[in-house]
Amino acid sequence: MMNKVRKAGVVGATGYTGQEVLRLLRGHPRLAVAFATSESEAGRPASGNGLRYVRAAHAPLGEVDVVFSCLPTGESGPWAVAAAAAGVAAIDLSADLREPGSGAVYGLPELWREEVRGSRLVANPGCYPTGILLGLAPLLAAGLLDRSRAVIVDAASGVTGAGRNARRDLLFGEVAEDYRAYGVGNRHRHVPEIAAGLARVGGGTEFVFTPHLLPVRRGILETMYVPVAAGADAAAVLAACRAAYAEEPFVEVREELPSLRDVVGRNVVALGAAEVAGLSEPLVLLIAAFDNLIKGAAGQAVQNANLMLGLEEREGLPL
Amino acid sequence: MMNKVRKAGVVGATGYTGQEVLRLLRGHPRLAVAFATSESEAGRPASGNGLRYVRAAHAPLGEVDVVFSCLPTGESGPWAVAAAAAGVAAIDLSADLREPGSGAVYGLPELWREEVRGSRLVANPGCYPTGILLGLAPLLAAGLLDRSRAVIVDAASGVTGAGRNARRDLLFGEVAEDYRAYGVGNRHRHVPEIAAGLARVGGGTEFVFTPHLLPVRRGILETMYVPVAAGADAAAVLAACRAAYAEEPFVEVREELPSLRDVVGRNVVALGAAEVAGLSEPLVLLIAAFDNLIKGAAGQAVQNANLMLGLEEREGLPL
Amino acid sequence: MMNKVRKAGVVGATGYTGQEVLRLLRGHPRLAVAFATSESEAGRPASGNGLRYVRAAHAPLGEVDVVFSCLPTGESGPWAVAAAAAGVAAIDLSADLREPGSGAVYGLPELWREEVRGSRLVANPGCYPTGILLGLAPLLAAGLLDRSRAVIVDAASGVTGAGRNARRDLLFGEVAEDYRAYGVGNRHRHVPEIAAGLARVGGGTEFVFTPHLLPVRRGILETMYVPVAAGADAAAVLAACRAAYAEEPFVEVREELPSLRDVVGRNVVALGAAEVAGLSEPLVLLIAAFDNLIKGAAGQAVQNANLMLGLEEREGLPL
Amino acid sequence: MMNKVRKAGVVGATGYTGQEVLRLLRGHPRLAVAFATSESEAGRPASGNGLRYVRAAHAPLGEVDVVFSCLPTGESGPWAVAAAAAGVAAIDLSADLREPGSGAVYGLPELWREEVRGSRLVANPGCYPTGILLGLAPLLAAGLLDRSRAVIVDAASGVTGAGRNARRDLLFGEVAEDYRAYGVGNRHRHVPEIAAGLARVGGGTEFVFTPHLLPVRRGILETMYVPVAAGADAAAVLAACRAAYAEEPFVEVREELPSLRDVVGRNVVALGAAEVAGLSEPLVLLIAAFDNLIKGAAGQAVQNANLMLGLEEREGLPL
Repeated sequence: MMNKVRKAGVVGATGYTGQEVLRLLRGHPRLAVAFATSESEAGRPASGNGLRYVRAAHAPLGEVDVVFSCLPTGESGPWAVAAAAAGVAAIDLSADLREPGSGAVYGLPELWREEVRGSRLVANPGCYPTGILLGLAPLLAAGLLDRSRAVIVDAASGVTGAGRNARRDLLFGEVAEDYRAYGVGNRHRHVPEIAAGLARVGGGTEFVFTPHLLPVRRGILETMYVPVAAGADAAAVLAACRAAYAEEPFVEVREELPSLRDVVGRNVVALGAAEVAGLSEPLVLLIAAFDNLIKGAAGQAVQNANLMLGLEEREGLPL
Repeated sequence: MMNKVRKAGVVGATGYTGQEVLRLLRGHPRLAVAFATSESEAGRPASGNGLRYVRAAHAPLGEVDVVFSCLPTGESGPWAVAAAAAGVAAIDLSADLREPGSGAVYGLPELWREEVRGSRLVANPGCYPTGILLGLAPLLAAGLLDRSRAVIVDAASGVTGAGRNARRDLLFGEVAEDYRAYGVGNRHRHVPEIAAGLARVGGGTEFVFTPHLLPVRRGILETMYVPVAAGADAAAVLAACRAAYAEEPFVEVREELPSLRDVVGRNVVALGAAEVAGLSEPLVLLIAAFDNLIKGAAGQAVQNANLMLGLEEREGLPL
Repeated sequence: MMNKVRKAGVVGATGYTGQEVLRLLRGHPRLAVAFATSESEAGRPASGNGLRYVRAAHAPLGEVDVVFSCLPTGESGPWAVAAAAAGVAAIDLSADLREPGSGAVYGLPELWREEVRGSRLVANPGCYPTGILLGLAPLLAAGLLDRSRAVIVDAASGVTGAGRNARRDLLFGEVAEDYRAYGVGNRHRHVPEIAAGLARVGGGTEFVFTPHLLPVRRGILETMYVPVAAGADAAAVLAACRAAYAEEPFVEVREELPSLRDVVGRNVVALGAAEVAGLSEPLVLLIAAFDNLIKGAAGQAVQNANLMLGLEEREGLPL
Repeated sequence: MMNKVRKAGVVGATGYTGQEVLRLLRGHPRLAVAFATSESEAGRPASGNGLRYVRAAHAPLGEVDVVFSCLPTGESGPWAVAAAAAGVAAIDLSADLREPGSGAVYGLPELWREEVRGSRLVANPGCYPTGILLGLAPLLAAGLLDRSRAVIVDAASGVTGAGRNARRDLLFGEVAEDYRAYGVGNRHRHVPEIAAGLARVGGGTEFVFTPHLLPVRRGILETMYVPVAAGADAAAVLAACRAAYAEEPFVEVREELPSLRDVVGRNVVALGAAEVAGLSEPLVLLIAAFDNLIKGAAGQAVQNANLMLGLEEREGLPL
């Protein structure tokens, strides 16, 4: 019975996230794609999976065990809710169901694995929050944070994080050789998700989140300036992370600071820390790096699917 | 009288070509921008020129001596024709008026300067044809080509050549780390323009044109495989080019093969040649490199404007 | 016995090619890395394989079944020859042993699989020749080429093809936003290898080879202008390729022209063709695209190792 | 007398900084290059200036009014000191003379113009410090900073900031698609220079400086998290900057946050600010963007040269 191959559907499969789910499932030994939907490409072959795209309205929901909803925010959540109501395990990769009270479990397995395991409806975390929450959770839990001061998160993301819609500001001619901040002043739509996650993990803490658009295709690097309690230092921060993630295959705590090249193509968040000497109020530099499309989206969704279906969590995921 | 500053209008000023015309005119000592049009940005400041964009319908045509029409192909030509009819010197940067019989002069100054000088309506050449025609014209004129065999033109262009419209295939996430041929098999829309230009310059010759999309913002490199007459070689090709362009400030004939870095940011076509030894039928490699937005578009348009207005052709153009 | 895991050594493991061999072997179910050598990194961990680099002089050759020699050209061949003499299957990834008469088998499995199977010493093909030979071999075999005219190969390669040595001309600041030809006029060191391969495959044919340096990390695209015999066309070319590679997992003959994105990360050469209409002498456009580090180097080497060790050729190779 | 063209020498002219000085001086109406030195390129033409490189030992120092010393740190300062001792105005673009007590004037004209004007020996500021000092100086002067808390400076620089030496970690194959922090924990060599500058400008303040390497050629973006005094906000910060730089052509205070594209190719530092709402301890986001090779190096050096020679400060500088 454990050897049975389960069936998955991917809704909204031609965006970057949907394509990455399809790509990962091609290498998954126990989860096969039964359908993939696309309005614009309906009827055309879904490369590498031996299928043709169908319209979402024609998706044979009854044939699958799990559905990955990769539609745009606003459409995706309702689709996932309906699928779950129809008895199919559903993972929403949009921002629709990430807020507390949405009825979905927030699917960050390293922090809330048991909730995911028993769930039929999972909100897959946003890319930026994934690294921030995995980085700060052990520090909050260990009481290392000085919560009277704000954590500063200066983040940079590759362009696939913005999706695959035709937008002038995402043209190669605009992005290449540029670097810019956007959604500053805690106005990015991931801010409430980060706040809710931090609250849940350890009572919350103030933070400032500044994302930047990086001229690379994939990868997020989050440079966090963490106010630490008196006596705490980078070694203590690393020790707390190591203890928290000792058994986790998808979190790497490193001696050296991670960069995008260490993580692109892998379902991993890499963490590193460094001391900042000589400050009146102590601060530790904590850097999280990960592939926004894998551990920040599709890979994490596969982790969630594995848990929901009772499969081994690591199946089909590139380390 | 020669010191009078003339006035220019730029229609469709927020695309890559229009922006480049604005940028060049900021440094032009005798041609000032009097208006710049944009439908989407109307009312907003046109950066660096101290103006605000107006809608094309409100363009004060009566106030200018010359107009640069940078609208999309299909709209641009009619606009330029109307402006010329209203007595304003008009340069159409689209493909609309490049065909013989359009009533416009084909504005490649190094080959047809006198026609440009006397004209009120100029079709600014396409980017790809500019390098091909400047490269092959001296060889046709000197009888160096073996016209029984086709010239092969393998070309690569930066993405700004495709314009600034929001298209999925031009997103950074699609173009970065990619390279691809497009419009192959002489199906690119510049092919008739190249054929007409070669015919006019020296009786024409067969050619194969294969453009590729390059993950850079600016620049075109055309690698031409030129069948040469018996006895001709790279030295003869270079000598013919040098003789033809001895007095031309905007064509550089080089000892070494040019690359994009030699030309980006400058109003120049650089030419170089190399021998291919040991072939039964002799062939010379001829490479043309230039900035698609300058010598391939806006810079050449300024050359044309200078000629049409009786100004010194080099004014305002970066060497 | 078929289930036994064999052992491999990688010599010169910190260049791009060596790193790629290590990466591929991490996913190989029947071939494990027993040692990896590096002079500069000796003693440091070889990431992801649980080993530390050793100096080449300390490589425990007696413990392995096969060795991948990824040293610089000049050093690599002798190393492989010595290993083979010591009884270890040896694959030389440098240019040292690619010439006929070197004593090594030329390891392009799709063309000369049986020779590889019985060999102890294999010369792994150069990246550029791999695509050219796989593209042209079926045409030569089928008599589709007009051998009185030269094939023109206009090729573009990502920078990893030039190796990982510190060179000013390969700095990001030099390569980004540039594109240039190099080694033109059939002076590139791969030219004799291409000529020898074509001779062996079907009597040879004249060609012109022009490589260009592309601002991408990985991937080669070869745009070939193939003079075809009267009556032959793109359909005939594609049919010949399809027939030749019907059983080959690592050659894809496509309806549409391939681009780098179709092949990067995969052990595949993708081929496509297009008609050029209206020429006096018929020509077909044939495009080969592949990942220079995989099918153009490390992946092909793993194919060769699999054949030499009697393993299934596809083991450990990403499709 | 004001119309006389002065003569300049450029020492170490083939690095990125030296090349940029040469490029700027080509457009300078009153300062002509009389010599340019290079050990590796001695005897070869210095492109575009009509000169040939000479060895530094043969530099005709007696023929010039000013010398730009662009040698590596360690060599450059002594060269500049010697030139100044020989009576030539000398600008050192290395880090050698930037510390107080070096005998050189620290050449950040917007802050210390008068010292520069009277000097024979100027230390040209480092790239990172230029943006930080120009951004924070008005806030320190206006008492807007809460100096009990550290300013956090998260900076990203294009690769030309690291110079043009052949280094493996700066290869295109390493830098493209990557992003990484380096010199963290206030260990970057610009930290003492920043500290000294802040001390001089207004009594100093604690800061944390984290540079990152960006896969672009040119440009620095510094995202500064500025602790402000009670009652201060982004509007106050912008007002202070506007007041301080009202007469400065090379500092732009913007409504919108600047990005690299706004400044690359220009001798300008662009500043923008944004509010971060809802924090217990108020913070303003201040962003500085500039071209590391122009306002961060060669352009600023030309400003200094103009001042030292009694020329108009803006001459030869692209706005």
